[in-house]
Amino acid sequence: MSAPGARAWVVAAGWIPPESSGPEPEYTSREELAILNASTEDVTARITVFHTDRDPVGPYEVTVAARRTRSLRVNDLIDPEAVPLGRHFSLLVEAESPVVVQQVRFDTRRDGLATLSALAYPVEL
Amino acid sequence: MSAPGARAWVVAAGWIPPESSGPEPEYTSREELAILNASTEDVTARITVFHTDRDPVGPYEVTVAARRTRSLRVNDLIDPEAVPLGRHFSLLVEAESPVVVQQVRFDTRRDGLATLSALAYPVEL
Amino acid sequence: MSAPGARAWVVAAGWIPPESSGPEPEYTSREELAILNASTEDVTARITVFHTDRDPVGPYEVTVAARRTRSLRVNDLIDPEAVPLGRHFSLLVEAESPVVVQQVRFDTRRDGLATLSALAYPVEL
Amino acid sequence: MSAPGARAWVVAAGWIPPESSGPEPEYTSREELAILNASTEDVTARITVFHTDRDPVGPYEVTVAARRTRSLRVNDLIDPEAVPLGRHFSLLVEAESPVVVQQVRFDTRRDGLATLSALAYPVEL
Repeated sequence: MSAPGARAWVVAAGWIPPESSGPEPEYTSREELAILNASTEDVTARITVFHTDRDPVGPYEVTVAARRTRSLRVNDLIDPEAVPLGRHFSLLVEAESPVVVQQVRFDTRRDGLATLSALAYPVEL
Repeated sequence: MSAPGARAWVVAAGWIPPESSGPEPEYTSREELAILNASTEDVTARITVFHTDRDPVGPYEVTVAARRTRSLRVNDLIDPEAVPLGRHFSLLVEAESPVVVQQVRFDTRRDGLATLSALAYPVEL
Repeated sequence: MSAPGARAWVVAAGWIPPESSGPEPEYTSREELAILNASTEDVTARITVFHTDRDPVGPYEVTVAARRTRSLRVNDLIDPEAVPLGRHFSLLVEAESPVVVQQVRFDTRRDGLATLSALAYPVEL
Repeated sequence: MSAPGARAWVVAAGWIPPESSGPEPEYTSREELAILNASTEDVTARITVFHTDRDPVGPYEVTVAARRTRSLRVNDLIDPEAVPLGRHFSLLVEAESPVVVQQVRFDTRRDGLATLSALAYPVEL
């Protein structure tokens, strides 16, 4: 099977809700990035975080093993620096070989739960 | 009418919430896969489930009759094995002829309801 | 300005929540279809509703005036017949000239509100 | 790096919930437009708002600096005129160079929170 997907993806509307309610980690407010690597080779993805008021930060390096999927909490991206809570950002994901990327947000601020998801946008670089 | 859609689709961000509140089956937390077969022939779709820490599982075979649509609860995929609750997965849907695939999640864990949806990503294999 | 969009679109995951809470019509549970006609000519869209267990129904005819947008409640499609509540369906929208179509669902069943949206999928017929 | 994205995007299903609950501005019901400009040049985007019952209004001009992202509340678009709350609209975003656009809606009307997101649809003009 050839590897389905694209080698670069953008999530334009990134935002980590700054507060949470309920037990961690399942109810921690968060922005998640799902990355499927359906190929037979491990893939390294490099993530660049774009901000509203300063230069982009990155790359954050993430490995997804061959024929595996990974769900990454943007909250957990800490090297080279943590992504600030409660501030708008965008993500550019660049992989060595085709992957598929989707965004999911969990927001537990108001003692309930709100979720959203959007396909990332595949781009050519 | 020719059949609209694509023959392979990926849902990268699959996850079945591990708890529910409210009467079953309408408030059972779930991940759903909607598949439209607008063609004049029945179609068999083969679903492969990708996991984070072990080899992909499948195919799960699903038939969608000619000129029919189907909404499939991933919770109900049990052959060759049930898809675990509360764990990230991705889905690859391969059909004999073009279909259209969309994901919907219902999460009733917190005595309310949170929903999300995303178009699946059409791929070439 | 040329007309942006496509002439045929699919919403695979249609479903109208069968109950509502709160004042009508703003809190009526519903499936909405947004259709933008950015062209300088009125456009007629023909909607076909695909069901799980019987032949497709339609066309439902909808007009969107030139340089106007329209938000259509699927709940209000009654000719040739009403779309049943609480049952999965898919929609095929065919327009005379390019439009852009997006789905939004409001679900007020649990005394709160859950919303979801997905871009429709543009197809060639 | 070349600039990823497209130069024109449509959000078909725009709507600003007409009421809010909770402290402003974080819980103000709103429609947001995220715009990533990953290029090395500032970009001006011109937004046209399409209505259901009158001519389109615009352009609303928005600048996104080089290698920056911006989250715009449609509620804050006031020149040439404010976008009415509680009424369906569509957005056409035209930029001088490629950007990526995504929609997010926050709805706090019912003392909770409902969120939705969809990728905008890239178009050629």
